Amino acid sequence: MNQRPIGIFDSGLGGLTIVKEITKLLPNEDIIYLGDTARVPYGTRSKQIIKKFSLEDAKFLINKNVKCLVIACHTSSATAGAYLKKKLKKTLIFDVVTPVLAELKNTKKKIGVIGSRATITSGVYSELNAVQVPCPLFVPFIEEGETSGNLISLLAEKYLQEIKKSKVETLVLGCTHYPIIEKTIEDILPGVTLINPGVVLERNLKDFLIKNNLVNNQKTQGRIKYYVTDLNKRFIKVAEMFLGNKLKRKIEKVDIE
Amino acid sequence: MNQRPIGIFDSGLGGLTIVKEITKLLPNEDIIYLGDTARVPYGTRSKQIIKKFSLEDAKFLINKNVKCLVIACHTSSATAGAYLKKKLKKTLIFDVVTPVLAELKNTKKKIGVIGSRATITSGVYSELNAVQVPCPLFVPFIEEGETSGNLISLLAEKYLQEIKKSKVETLVLGCTHYPIIEKTIEDILPGVTLINPGVVLERNLKDFLIKNNLVNNQKTQGRIKYYVTDLNKRFIKVAEMFLGNKLKRKIEKVDIE
Repeated sequence: MNQRPIGIFDSGLGGLTIVKEITKLLPNEDIIYLGDTARVPYGTRSKQIIKKFSLEDAKFLINKNVKCLVIACHTSSATAGAYLKKKLKKTLIFDVVTPVLAELKNTKKKIGVIGSRATITSGVYSELNAVQVPCPLFVPFIEEGETSGNLISLLAEKYLQEIKKSKVETLVLGCTHYPIIEKTIEDILPGVTLINPGVVLERNLKDFLIKNNLVNNQKTQGRIKYYVTDLNKRFIKVAEMFLGNKLKRKIEKVDIE
Repeated sequence: MNQRPIGIFDSGLGGLTIVKEITKLLPNEDIIYLGDTARVPYGTRSKQIIKKFSLEDAKFLINKNVKCLVIACHTSSATAGAYLKKKLKKTLIFDVVTPVLAELKNTKKKIGVIGSRATITSGVYSELNAVQVPCPLFVPFIEEGETSGNLISLLAEKYLQEIKKSKVETLVLGCTHYPIIEKTIEDILPGVTLINPGVVLERNLKDFLIKNNLVNNQKTQGRIKYYVTDLNKRFIKVAEMFLGNKLKRKIEKVDIE
């Protein structure tokens, strides 16, 4: 057993969907979450900057004495995951790409991946021989609450055209935001299996903690501490969209640069 | 006369439209441009963070010995303009909001303002008794090249509905990006006068420099130096969209945090 908290970071607030799932799968774990809202989004930036920002995020959590680190952000996982694992050798690091690669590497199915521009150009999904499409406007749409109606349908039709034409059977939703518009994607791609990497990661994390005797065995429900690098009313609204309900705890603003 | 360069900063690359115009109006001026591409956009962030980032931008340029500072970013001008003028008393600072307020304060026309969420909530345009509408998705659309066609028309129809209903006669395009979609806006609001604050600022700046004998009197064309805080291929593409032609000079990446 290990009573230290799990550290989770994301470029913004999308990673809260992972917090939400972990509290269900591992209800006794304490969690420390960091969202880099002062510099979100990462997906449009260069590899070099994404590595720099991700390392700062990771170090903030390591200083909070976490027992492991979860990179909830797909862009960070794809672009800086290997870099962080090499740089922070003493820290146990989970990312959202590795378990998906392991799960899909032997499939015979035609695979598609959608994600940020940085995720797609990182090349991490190349080994799956997948049809890869960057969908940069999905994130701002979702953050603005444009999750149903004409506009998002029109945009999704445009982005998913190539996926549809290529007869993809399994589509990786390569960004924490995309599960929010799952319904829109399903309407355009009926019958296609959608993979939520967050869910794959959470299952892997649970198995690993149990197998390695790292589970928190406190009897009470785990505590969650939220940190962000910028805070305004809108961020709270977006946070509650991803959590699926009202924030019970205050979010604390920190400076990590 | 004053041979020192003019310093211009923006949250990203939209401010290059102002560089372009200044090189026409004041062709002998040397210019140093800074785009904070590592942290763009500013318009979705808190007032506190926008002030912090804007001050870092300003200090970078002041260290380059500029004769004056132009805040090209509307969000920075609206949110941090007064703060920077107070904080940096020795520096001559121009912003894109003040000259528009001066120009419109005595008009009898019905005024509208569109801008980022931070610009609108800053309240700087309240004295004009204007209809104010935040248009947060215009910036990502424009940066993704979605500047014509169904998607941008549908979005603009939605955002400009209130402006149309309120019978606005003069609309302030309160973001460096918006002049790129002027045509789309004109189609929805025929007969409405569109104000580009960059143009008002440039005229003001020219008059001020001449009146105060601060013009650069070199005979050769002014040199332009471009700095950004993050650089990738896409940023170069976006820069060329705003400049309206190929970048003749290399952009240099700097760390200003």
